[in-house]
Amino acid sequence: MNYGSIRYIIGWILRVEALLMLLPIGTAVVYQESSGWAFVISAALCLILGIMLSIKKPKKTTYYTKEGYISVALGWIVMSIMGCLPFVISGEIPSFVNALFETVSGFTTTGASILHDVEAMSRCGLLWRSFTHWVGGMGVLVFILAILPLAGGEHNLQLMKAESPGPSVSKLVPKLRETALTLYKIYFGMTVLLIVLYLIGGMPLFDALCLSFGTAGTGGFGILNDSIASYNVYLQAVTTVFMMLFGVNFSFYFLLLYRKGKEAFAMEEVRWYFIIYFAAVALITWNLGSSAGSLFERFHHAAFQAASIMTTTGFSTVDFNFWTPFTKGILLTLMFIGACAGSTGGGIKVSRIVMYFKSIKNEIASLIHPRSIKVVKFEGKVIDSTVRKSIFAYISAYLFIFVLSVLIVSLDGFDFETNFSAVAATYNNIGPGFGLVGPTSNFDQYSALAKMVLSLDMLIGRLEIFPILVLFSPSTWKK
Amino acid sequence: MNYGSIRYIIGWILRVEALLMLLPIGTAVVYQESSGWAFVISAALCLILGIMLSIKKPKKTTYYTKEGYISVALGWIVMSIMGCLPFVISGEIPSFVNALFETVSGFTTTGASILHDVEAMSRCGLLWRSFTHWVGGMGVLVFILAILPLAGGEHNLQLMKAESPGPSVSKLVPKLRETALTLYKIYFGMTVLLIVLYLIGGMPLFDALCLSFGTAGTGGFGILNDSIASYNVYLQAVTTVFMMLFGVNFSFYFLLLYRKGKEAFAMEEVRWYFIIYFAAVALITWNLGSSAGSLFERFHHAAFQAASIMTTTGFSTVDFNFWTPFTKGILLTLMFIGACAGSTGGGIKVSRIVMYFKSIKNEIASLIHPRSIKVVKFEGKVIDSTVRKSIFAYISAYLFIFVLSVLIVSLDGFDFETNFSAVAATYNNIGPGFGLVGPTSNFDQYSALAKMVLSLDMLIGRLEIFPILVLFSPSTWKK
Repeated sequence: MNYGSIRYIIGWILRVEALLMLLPIGTAVVYQESSGWAFVISAALCLILGIMLSIKKPKKTTYYTKEGYISVALGWIVMSIMGCLPFVISGEIPSFVNALFETVSGFTTTGASILHDVEAMSRCGLLWRSFTHWVGGMGVLVFILAILPLAGGEHNLQLMKAESPGPSVSKLVPKLRETALTLYKIYFGMTVLLIVLYLIGGMPLFDALCLSFGTAGTGGFGILNDSIASYNVYLQAVTTVFMMLFGVNFSFYFLLLYRKGKEAFAMEEVRWYFIIYFAAVALITWNLGSSAGSLFERFHHAAFQAASIMTTTGFSTVDFNFWTPFTKGILLTLMFIGACAGSTGGGIKVSRIVMYFKSIKNEIASLIHPRSIKVVKFEGKVIDSTVRKSIFAYISAYLFIFVLSVLIVSLDGFDFETNFSAVAATYNNIGPGFGLVGPTSNFDQYSALAKMVLSLDMLIGRLEIFPILVLFSPSTWKK
Repeated sequence: MNYGSIRYIIGWILRVEALLMLLPIGTAVVYQESSGWAFVISAALCLILGIMLSIKKPKKTTYYTKEGYISVALGWIVMSIMGCLPFVISGEIPSFVNALFETVSGFTTTGASILHDVEAMSRCGLLWRSFTHWVGGMGVLVFILAILPLAGGEHNLQLMKAESPGPSVSKLVPKLRETALTLYKIYFGMTVLLIVLYLIGGMPLFDALCLSFGTAGTGGFGILNDSIASYNVYLQAVTTVFMMLFGVNFSFYFLLLYRKGKEAFAMEEVRWYFIIYFAAVALITWNLGSSAGSLFERFHHAAFQAASIMTTTGFSTVDFNFWTPFTKGILLTLMFIGACAGSTGGGIKVSRIVMYFKSIKNEIASLIHPRSIKVVKFEGKVIDSTVRKSIFAYISAYLFIFVLSVLIVSLDGFDFETNFSAVAATYNNIGPGFGLVGPTSNFDQYSALAKMVLSLDMLIGRLEIFPILVLFSPSTWKK
C-alpha cells in the first residue's frame, strides 16, 4: 500500500476545501452574518491539516487502482467531515450526525435534508450547502487534477477512474490534465449561463447562485421550504431544461467542442436518455388526469419532476407524494435508471441500463438460435466479457447494499414505502422520496443509526460502490 | 420449428390432466357433491383434446432448447386454462379471469387466491386446488417423462431443463427417465410420510391430504380462512419441518439414496439454505419483542413464517402483516432469495444468490489485487463465463419483468407496499404479500388486467423466465 500518496492526496483535498470555504466567508461578509466565523475556523482547520498532510511529497510512485479507490473514498469522507464543521460550530445544525448527513448529502449531490425550516438558515450556510453540490457534481479530485501538477499520468488516471460516474471514461482520455480542465470549463460555462438566465427571469442574485449550484451538480438543496414551487413558470422551465442538460454525458459536449457534432449526436446513451425521459413525461402527463390541472400544467410539472428525478436532482414544484401510485412508480423507476454516465447525475446510469437490455436480448436470441453468435455493441464498441462481468458485479453489489440498507433502516419502524424510497433516494443521490420522506418532509425523523447508513449509501452511490467497498474490505488491509 | 413435437407433448399433457382430475371426481363421489360433474366434463374435454393432439406421432425428431421452452411454456398455459374449467363450469368461481388466476396460482405453487371465503368451496374443488400444487411442484413434464416412453434422450433433456427450477440439473443426469422416476418416488414417499404425521397429530384425512399437497409442492393454498392458524402447535411444527425439507435441493435426497451421505452433506447450497433460514429466524424472534408472546411462541411463529416464505409456500399461523417493519423486511428478502434449486420452491434460488455473492467478492478481490487471478467455485465446480453470463441475463430479465409488473399493477391505484409485495409474492410463487394482499386478504380487489399480469408473473417465475420470454419473443416465430 502506498500510504504516502494517499496521505498527500488527502492533504491536497483539504487545502482545496479551505479555498472553497472562502465563498461562504465572503457571503457572510456581504450579509454581515456572525456565523461566518464558523467558516473561518473550519477553513483554518482544513488548511493546517491539509498542509501537514501534504508538506512531504510521497516517496513511492507506484499507484494502482486499489490506492486510487482508497484515496477517493477516504478523501470524500474526510471532506464531508471537515465540511460539516461550520454547521456544528455555528450551532445551526448542532448534532454532528445531522450536520454530517447534510454535508454528505451536499457533496454527493443528493439533496436529502434533515432541516425542518431551510429559510431559518444563515445566508452563508445556505450558500455553502448549495456550493457543496456544485463541487461534488464534477468531483473534487477532477478539480485537483485540473489545477495541480500531481504525479504522473497513471496516477491521475486511477483517481479519475475512481471518481467519475459511469462505466467508462475512455472517451475523455488520453490527455488527462487537459481533459479535466476542459470538463471544468464546460461545467463553469454552463453554470454561468444558467445564472444569467435565472437573473433574466427576475430571480435575486443569491437565489440564482444557490439554485444554479444545485441544478448544475444535480443536487437539489433548495433555499425555500417549498423547493422551487414559488418561482415563476419561466424559472421552473429553465430549471427543467438545465437539469436535463447537466444529466447528459459530458463527452457529448466534448465532442461538440471539438466540432464532432455527428459523433456527438450519434451517442446511444444520450439518445436513450431522452427517449426514456420523454416516455416518462408522456406517461405521467397521461396518468395524472384532468383533476391535476390543464394539459399544459400537467405537462409542465411532469416534465419538471421527471427531469428532477431522472437526473437525480430532487427539486420539486409540487408535492408528488400525492400523485397517483402509477406516476410514483414511474418516478421510482427513473430514480434507479438515473442520468447518463459521465454527467453530474447519479443512479445506475442510462448506459448500464442499455447494456443490460442488450445483453438480455442477446441471451434470449442465443437460446432461440444457439448456433448463431451475435456480439453486443454499445456506442459502436463490442461489450466483451470483461465489461459484462463488471456490470454484473456492479448490479449484484448494488442490490445487496440496497437490501441491507432497507433492512437496517426499517429497524426504526416506519412504513415500507418510506424506508424503500428513503434508501432509493439517498443511494441514487436524488434527495426526496415518498411517504414520510416526501418532498415536503425531511430525514430528521430517522435515528442516528439510520442516518449514518443513509449517509454511507449516499457516498457509496456517488462513488459507484467499489471505492467504498474496497476501503472497508478486510483483504485491502491484509499484508 | 418442430411443430409436430410440440403438438404431441401438449396432447400428452392434456391426457395426463384428464387422469389427474379423477382425484377430485372421486372426492365428489365420496362427499356426494354435484359440482363433481364439472370435473367429469372438464376431464372429458381434456381427454378428447389430448387424444386429438397426440394421436399422430411427430415426424421430425430434431428438437432443440427452443422447442423445449415452447413446449413447456405452452404446456403450462394450456394446462392452466383446462384446469380452471371445473371452477367456471360449476359456478364456484364464475369469472374466467379469477378461475384462471386461481389455477395458475395452484400449478405454479404460488398459493395466491382471489377467494373471499375458502370454507364455502366444495370438497372436490378444494382438493383439486391443493392437488394442482402437488402436480406443479415437481412438474408435469417430469411426470410424463417418468411414466411415458416419449422420444429420445436429447428430446427429454431439453424438456427437463426447461421445467426444472434452478440453474443446473447436471447432477441428476444422465439416466433421464430413471432420474425422473426416482424424483417422483422421493416426492411421493415424503408426501405419504407427511400425511401419516398429520394423521397422528389428529388432523382429519381430507385436511391432511390437502395440506400435504400444499406443503409438498410449497404451494400454500389452505382450506380454512385462517390458513394454518387454528391447527395445534404439533401440526404447525410438522408443517414447518416439511416445508423446509421440500425446499431442499432434491439432489441431496438423491445422493442420500445412493449412499453418498458425505457428498450430500457437503452440498454448499443446502448449507447456505439452512444458514440463511436460521439467521432469519433468529433476527425475527429477536425483533418481534416480548409484546408478541413468550420466547417459545415467537420462535415458533418465526420458524414457521420464515420457512413458509423462504420455501415460497405461503401458509401463515399469524397475520404477519402486523409484524414490525424490520421483520417484514426480512420476510420480503426471503421472498426473493427463495428455496434451493431443484426443489419444489420458487424465488431466485439460494444457489444463484450464493454464486452472485462469490462473484462480487471475486470482483472486489481482483480490484485490490489485479494481478492475482482467482477462480470462483460453487459445489466444487468453477463458475465459468457461460454460467456467469446466464446468471447475469437471468437477474437482468428478472428485474426488468419485476419493475414492469409493479408499474402495470400500480395502475389500479393501491399503495406501494401492496403493489410491490403483490408482484414479489406472485412472481416468486409465494402467495400472500403485505398490505392489502396480506395473509388475511386476497387478490380479488385487483382489476382483470392486473390479475392477468400477476398470473403471467406466476408462470414466468415458476418456469424461470426464459421459456415464457422465448414463447413471446418475435424472433422465435420469424422464419
